[in-house]
Amino acid sequence: MFDSGFGGLTVARATIDLLPAEHLVYIGDTGRYPYGSKPLRDVRRFSRELAWSLVEDYDAKAIVVACNTATAAGLDDLRNELPVPVIDVVTPGVKALVHTTSTGRVGVIGTVGTIKSGAYVRAIAETGVPVKLTSAACPGFVEFVERGQTTGDEVTVLAERLLAPIRSARVDALLLGCTHYPFLARTIGDVMGVDVTLVSSADETAFAIRTRLSELGLLRADERPGTHRFVSSGDIEVFRELGAQLLGPELDRTERWVPTRG
Amino acid sequence: MFDSGFGGLTVARATIDLLPAEHLVYIGDTGRYPYGSKPLRDVRRFSRELAWSLVEDYDAKAIVVACNTATAAGLDDLRNELPVPVIDVVTPGVKALVHTTSTGRVGVIGTVGTIKSGAYVRAIAETGVPVKLTSAACPGFVEFVERGQTTGDEVTVLAERLLAPIRSARVDALLLGCTHYPFLARTIGDVMGVDVTLVSSADETAFAIRTRLSELGLLRADERPGTHRFVSSGDIEVFRELGAQLLGPELDRTERWVPTRG
Repeated sequence: MFDSGFGGLTVARATIDLLPAEHLVYIGDTGRYPYGSKPLRDVRRFSRELAWSLVEDYDAKAIVVACNTATAAGLDDLRNELPVPVIDVVTPGVKALVHTTSTGRVGVIGTVGTIKSGAYVRAIAETGVPVKLTSAACPGFVEFVERGQTTGDEVTVLAERLLAPIRSARVDALLLGCTHYPFLARTIGDVMGVDVTLVSSADETAFAIRTRLSELGLLRADERPGTHRFVSSGDIEVFRELGAQLLGPELDRTERWVPTRG
Repeated sequence: MFDSGFGGLTVARATIDLLPAEHLVYIGDTGRYPYGSKPLRDVRRFSRELAWSLVEDYDAKAIVVACNTATAAGLDDLRNELPVPVIDVVTPGVKALVHTTSTGRVGVIGTVGTIKSGAYVRAIAETGVPVKLTSAACPGFVEFVERGQTTGDEVTVLAERLLAPIRSARVDALLLGCTHYPFLARTIGDVMGVDVTLVSSADETAFAIRTRLSELGLLRADERPGTHRFVSSGDIEVFRELGAQLLGPELDRTERWVPTRG
């Protein structure tokens, strides 16, 4: 599993909880993040390096692209060239979203880059389910999460302002289309109200991982818990500190990413 | 001069530029920041410790409270007990704001805490100038500045969203009521348009410092440039790196804050 930084840790958390027997290697590319402001070509190159490193250096049996920007930048290349299955964070959330709504009015929130890319509009169209989609970019959400500040006045007021168009659209299901956002679920839920179901890309991706591994006969058949390794291309001490705060006690140390090729 | 963290560096920058002969000691209380989420009682105690340390440990002839939260938490105590003049960041900006407007429609932006405190509403009322004030909290602005991310899509979209009520109010002058915001002046200016004058608390505070020192005969009469010391209660390496990016080359090293009492 890889991400540009810390956001994908929500996917890691959900995966550890759902599939405790699986071994997990998480690379956070904090040495080069944030990806949002980088050219797509660079993001594609970083993704290939990270994915190949997971296969060759860490012997991964499947790759999870736990990063919306990398997913939006194009998965086709990775799927074509990698010898293992590739699971993304967009498709699972979108599938859950269109099946959760009963009114047909749904919302998606994400970073400016993700919303502008149109990746969610396309993914929803591909489901063939006719829904009315309202999107909103939520700049600032990622920044608060990465300060470890997930509740409080500042975040709540920001959420009220940014979610106003989604509330006006009277959606009954809202997809958290950025892997950072589940850390803000309480605040987002308070602002949206109890009648709106929040769909987490992270949880849905974990389900998709289980389904895919099961279909391919790749689930680990072992009673003992899997190992969890956290790897960073940036400052490993910073990664460990904030990472542990966000993910939990499993992230008790961080290794430095040393790719063998690339 | 003291602040909870990095924001006051805009005041330091403006002061160095306007008063190059003055010696400046800046304490950033990054070991205990952000103040915004702390009880007022704690903020008052921190302010007293920092102000007294500047007087006793650094021999300050005047204190600048370069922090809106600390200013809003109450300056009267500091003014009553300190043996040197105390300059705040709210009054100078407000005075400039009410004299800049020609339509009488003005705006103030700040953190949620500052806007909620009502400090600007009161300060504007105290000027006796009849203006129509529109305020807006801008959660997220500080967080982007402290990542060193002051331009780009994410910040621009956030500014468009948060400044919408100020734009609707058709103000002709907007006070940046948070010491971090001058770092975002370009983005804020682009969003507000050329017809709106931005008033910087930082610049106005530097003018107020000059006026006050001059009135009291305390300006340093020396051709040689003053010294600039930057002191932090938190990680001094982090402070130096981000600080230099924000303030400029004068911030080439950071000392650790070691108060002699408190």
